[in-house]
Amino acid sequence: MLSELNVPRRILLGPGPSEVGPRVLRAMSTPLVGHLDPSFVALMEEVKDLLRQTFRTANRLTFPLSATGSAGMEAVLVNLLEPGDHAVICVNGVFGGRMVEIARRAGAEVTTVEVPWGEVVDADHLRKTLAGLPANAPLRLVASVHAETSTGARQPLEELSRIAHERGALFVVDTVTSLGGAPVEVDAWGIDASYSGTQKCLSCPPGLSPVTFGEAALARVRARKHKVQSWYLDVGLLEQYWGTDRVYHHTAPITMVYALYESLRAVHEEGLDARFARHVKHHRALVAGLEALGLALPVAAQHRLPMLNAVLVPDGVDEGGVRRRLLERHGIEIGAGLGPWKGKVWRIGLMGDSSTPANVLLVLAALAEALGSAAAGAALGAAEQVLAAD
Amino acid sequence: MLSELNVPRRILLGPGPSEVGPRVLRAMSTPLVGHLDPSFVALMEEVKDLLRQTFRTANRLTFPLSATGSAGMEAVLVNLLEPGDHAVICVNGVFGGRMVEIARRAGAEVTTVEVPWGEVVDADHLRKTLAGLPANAPLRLVASVHAETSTGARQPLEELSRIAHERGALFVVDTVTSLGGAPVEVDAWGIDASYSGTQKCLSCPPGLSPVTFGEAALARVRARKHKVQSWYLDVGLLEQYWGTDRVYHHTAPITMVYALYESLRAVHEEGLDARFARHVKHHRALVAGLEALGLALPVAAQHRLPMLNAVLVPDGVDEGGVRRRLLERHGIEIGAGLGPWKGKVWRIGLMGDSSTPANVLLVLAALAEALGSAAAGAALGAAEQVLAAD
Repeated sequence: MLSELNVPRRILLGPGPSEVGPRVLRAMSTPLVGHLDPSFVALMEEVKDLLRQTFRTANRLTFPLSATGSAGMEAVLVNLLEPGDHAVICVNGVFGGRMVEIARRAGAEVTTVEVPWGEVVDADHLRKTLAGLPANAPLRLVASVHAETSTGARQPLEELSRIAHERGALFVVDTVTSLGGAPVEVDAWGIDASYSGTQKCLSCPPGLSPVTFGEAALARVRARKHKVQSWYLDVGLLEQYWGTDRVYHHTAPITMVYALYESLRAVHEEGLDARFARHVKHHRALVAGLEALGLALPVAAQHRLPMLNAVLVPDGVDEGGVRRRLLERHGIEIGAGLGPWKGKVWRIGLMGDSSTPANVLLVLAALAEALGSAAAGAALGAAEQVLAAD
Repeated sequence: MLSELNVPRRILLGPGPSEVGPRVLRAMSTPLVGHLDPSFVALMEEVKDLLRQTFRTANRLTFPLSATGSAGMEAVLVNLLEPGDHAVICVNGVFGGRMVEIARRAGAEVTTVEVPWGEVVDADHLRKTLAGLPANAPLRLVASVHAETSTGARQPLEELSRIAHERGALFVVDTVTSLGGAPVEVDAWGIDASYSGTQKCLSCPPGLSPVTFGEAALARVRARKHKVQSWYLDVGLLEQYWGTDRVYHHTAPITMVYALYESLRAVHEEGLDARFARHVKHHRALVAGLEALGLALPVAAQHRLPMLNAVLVPDGVDEGGVRRRLLERHGIEIGAGLGPWKGKVWRIGLMGDSSTPANVLLVLAALAEALGSAAAGAALGAAEQVLAAD
């Protein structure tokens, strides 16, 4: 016989999942109601409304898709793209690359705007790429990752959005890692469709993907010549299930919706602006400490994300050994590099409930120890100075 | 400000979700580890092994897909079918019809074997359908729903499997409602691929879809000419994530996997055979009581599922009114009819933890009250007689 579930205590400072607070964990142990129960229908409405506030959008079709963030990416792309459509996708890390792969599987002709990992796409680069497309190419969308989790770079979006719209294309944004941790202004920035995840700055377990579709995006879906290739992700069907009709489609992950409700309540009790400021402050404290340890970040300061920090592994240091020491000695998870950055960076996440002064100090102290650094005191002092400032 | 999550207490006797026991709910409030944590990797192996025991298969590729049962259906079909492939799908309710829709979206030519709702497909019917296909049609698979949740009929599978294999086709089975509640013999019955759900007889919240692929099915996937249209559901990629390589694909819903582990432990502590016998006994007790109330079941006795009972609404009775009365007065959820059976049947589920003597008596008593029946005592007596038997 296998033993009762018995998992170690971890402090989650990687690229997600982030720490999940007691009130959200408690929500997950709530006995279930049916997914068509009047009380669940009412809860779905409240979750939709909370997500609209979080995405800062009035989009009617805003709901948590019943799968993880990558399925949200797929849902947005396969609903908006048909075979033969053109898509322009900005790529500066893993997740832009994933969008390319998914768009191509949907039959789209994809043109990429590629910049080196850690950098962000310049508006002129996009403008030139669009100018180079055949004038009659049916350009359906321009897509970008807002917070590239593989590098820790934040892509400015407003100008990209304007350029996409000037060309008559929809503007699609991956907000998996940014939502709830940095400003995401779906309406103000003219984002036509976006998808996120629950396990990053919302501090909810993974399992749902908040998505939002504006009216222009929905008009595109309605004008499709072919059915969406995915039945599970078909927004026309999901709209009826999550809309006022409540037409049975699938069985929503009830418990996950409970958890998301409670995590979104926590987000809005704190307030989005206060939450963003908290992420920035702890990020700055972490960076001050890392620099005092002699560690460098590969992303230029003005493009750094507040919730995900890539840190260069110094020459001669065993990247995996340091991560293992943090995990085994202290129960601290930090992330490894992906793709071309494998073995070259660590990724330290301070997302949602993980973004605390205690975690800033802890990860600095643990890194100093693992690296055998004599600068532990200086690092903690540098971090404390930022933390103590108003 | 919205109030803390506050949902009513329900007794779940509908088509799913079923009741989730305290140990599984408790598992869901466990603080998370990362999805690449060594402890989670070990847990994934244990869950895969427990699922193999539940499906009664040695299939290496057996794992919980990170979405609900309908996504499991889509995963199996879109991996095995390519545009132009032929598929033969048995249809006797909603879920067979859903398979047809998904297979067509995958570009397959679908031939249906249709029988009226509540009936099951006869082997000769399938044989004739296959004989009527063009001899050179690339028939990739024959698919059937084992336990049709919309009707409560159980499809015998062994002969269908033989017939499919004789024609060189794979045999695909929907075991969403049967797994853990009635025998599912993936290896002994020659099932090449199957998908299930967590929220039926496994008594785990909805959110994952246990799937299993045999070697013949995987060989088909490897021989594909085109990439699988869905990146999220691509078995080639999922195999690397759930296999020994642990290649990052998406972030598994960690908490749901905790819950599934604990629910599968409970399944195997009880023992599959004991569990099946429990479902049968409580089903028989329920039916005895329903008949004493003068209620009839639309499915022939030999084809009835033990975990899902369709019950004909007597003439002149307000179908929705009875369901509402059960819900509002007693907190009992039973299901409505779907499609052509809308307004004509109730669906009473006794799945997993919901299959108890107490729930049999309770739903009979509540139905008798709602119907104003004078036969309540007789119904309870008839049920008790079955429950008391060895």
